[in-house]
Amino acid sequence: MILLLGGHGYVGQAFANNLQSRGLVFAAPSHQDLDATSKDAVARMVGTLKPRYVINAIGYTGRPNIDSTEQEKSLTLTANTTVPCVLGEVLTAQKVPFGHVSSGCIYDGSRPDGTPFTENDAPNFAFSHPNASWYSRTKAMAETVLADSSTCTIWRLRIPFDQFDHERNYLTKLMRYERLLEVNNSISQLQEFAAACIESLERRIPPGIYNVTNPGAIRTSEVAKALRQHGLCDREFQFFPSEEDFLAVPGRVKRANCILSSDKLAATGITLREVHEALDWTLRRWKMLKS
Amino acid sequence: MILLLGGHGYVGQAFANNLQSRGLVFAAPSHQDLDATSKDAVARMVGTLKPRYVINAIGYTGRPNIDSTEQEKSLTLTANTTVPCVLGEVLTAQKVPFGHVSSGCIYDGSRPDGTPFTENDAPNFAFSHPNASWYSRTKAMAETVLADSSTCTIWRLRIPFDQFDHERNYLTKLMRYERLLEVNNSISQLQEFAAACIESLERRIPPGIYNVTNPGAIRTSEVAKALRQHGLCDREFQFFPSEEDFLAVPGRVKRANCILSSDKLAATGITLREVHEALDWTLRRWKMLKS
Repeated sequence: MILLLGGHGYVGQAFANNLQSRGLVFAAPSHQDLDATSKDAVARMVGTLKPRYVINAIGYTGRPNIDSTEQEKSLTLTANTTVPCVLGEVLTAQKVPFGHVSSGCIYDGSRPDGTPFTENDAPNFAFSHPNASWYSRTKAMAETVLADSSTCTIWRLRIPFDQFDHERNYLTKLMRYERLLEVNNSISQLQEFAAACIESLERRIPPGIYNVTNPGAIRTSEVAKALRQHGLCDREFQFFPSEEDFLAVPGRVKRANCILSSDKLAATGITLREVHEALDWTLRRWKMLKS
Repeated sequence: MILLLGGHGYVGQAFANNLQSRGLVFAAPSHQDLDATSKDAVARMVGTLKPRYVINAIGYTGRPNIDSTEQEKSLTLTANTTVPCVLGEVLTAQKVPFGHVSSGCIYDGSRPDGTPFTENDAPNFAFSHPNASWYSRTKAMAETVLADSSTCTIWRLRIPFDQFDHERNYLTKLMRYERLLEVNNSISQLQEFAAACIESLERRIPPGIYNVTNPGAIRTSEVAKALRQHGLCDREFQFFPSEEDFLAVPGRVKRANCILSSDKLAATGITLREVHEALDWTLRRWKMLKS
């Protein structure tokens, strides 16, 4: 028995699908079934279900996008920091292995020498960074609290995309945005992400932080071009002349844009496809599903 | 009408006493009366009471001391970060002035040139500091969320002491501890602190961050000597040979020790006594109360 929290969300559903495809039995309580901010409620459920491991896919990333987390600070804090804090206390004490969906959006840019950030680099887009978003701050705070746990694996997701049209899917977003910002990013194919995360718990790799992104980095214009080439979108994409113009839109907060190394995860034997290859596979699949 | 949150705690009672001595009408709901983590509950109470201003003295500093906050991370986060986050959202939107009891324990040491930290210095004992306590992190996170509020005054308290024997009183603690650590700190006489904070709201000084400490700094050995000189304690105080020895005690977390400038508050016309003078006054008063 596996316990999946947040299993009805965008990321959680990818976990649910992967668990199902493996034939694994799992429970995915809704918010109504479980108040995950309550240590007592979590301890009771874990005591009853006795899960082999727990997956935390609860999180708040804003609606329609991350800008709104600035207006929903307590909700964002509760979902992104309090819940992992409670899980860390209950599950570490009970020695139950668990994985937590974190975010690579606690980094901006790349290391001074231009190489990708590794898990040994301290987040540079959170904490004392004056322009860090509240979202990034809450995710980084959760990593701080879980860093001490002997049973927690932290999975850093970045800009999820897959072959299903969805308001949270990076590819859907790009097709809907009026204008795009040209940036270079490490991103995560969502099905590959969920598969890798579950594999990490099944194989019992050492607990700790892992960047779970497709190796390499990709520019917005490359993704836009691929969307046109695969016939999924025939519009001419417009780009902001600069990040300053992008940020000049009222209510907009600075995004983290960064390149992450997934070498630490790969060293455990768990790999994701190179990012351009993963995008190509995803767009072909999308095209097939459409036709 | 004034709304005092956390009015039954150690710091909150000092606020309650000061409000009473001014003949001001206030409500001090208990935890049972108000769930201060709920935006709806806070908005309802503020809508009903229509307070002139709100004082937030809710906070968790650990029992018997700050070490225990490491074992009570979700409780500490909820009291110290979620509550101010909720208040910031509700009270800023409703344009209600409010004050929040923060902590100077988000700094360690002094500025590179040896001068006291001012409110313009970014906290250096929180966020990415590897040894910062969870307590300091949660207090700093609250300051981050309240920094944007146009109606919030942040009051930084440090190591409260007064003339009443209490487990939270710095003087009581020193008399009970087996061994002391010699450090140099800015500290806050609690009655003076509460008076200055209420004065800041009554006078409507500009919202923002204020260090509310007694001017100057004092060494542990100076306080210990004064306790003996005033006849409040006749034991010979023992000191740890070094901070390393102090921290070698299992479960002990590093304390913030720092010197803060209270010049910004003083510039508004609100002053506290010089720290040695405040200690002397407090110990004389304690002696009188005892006899």
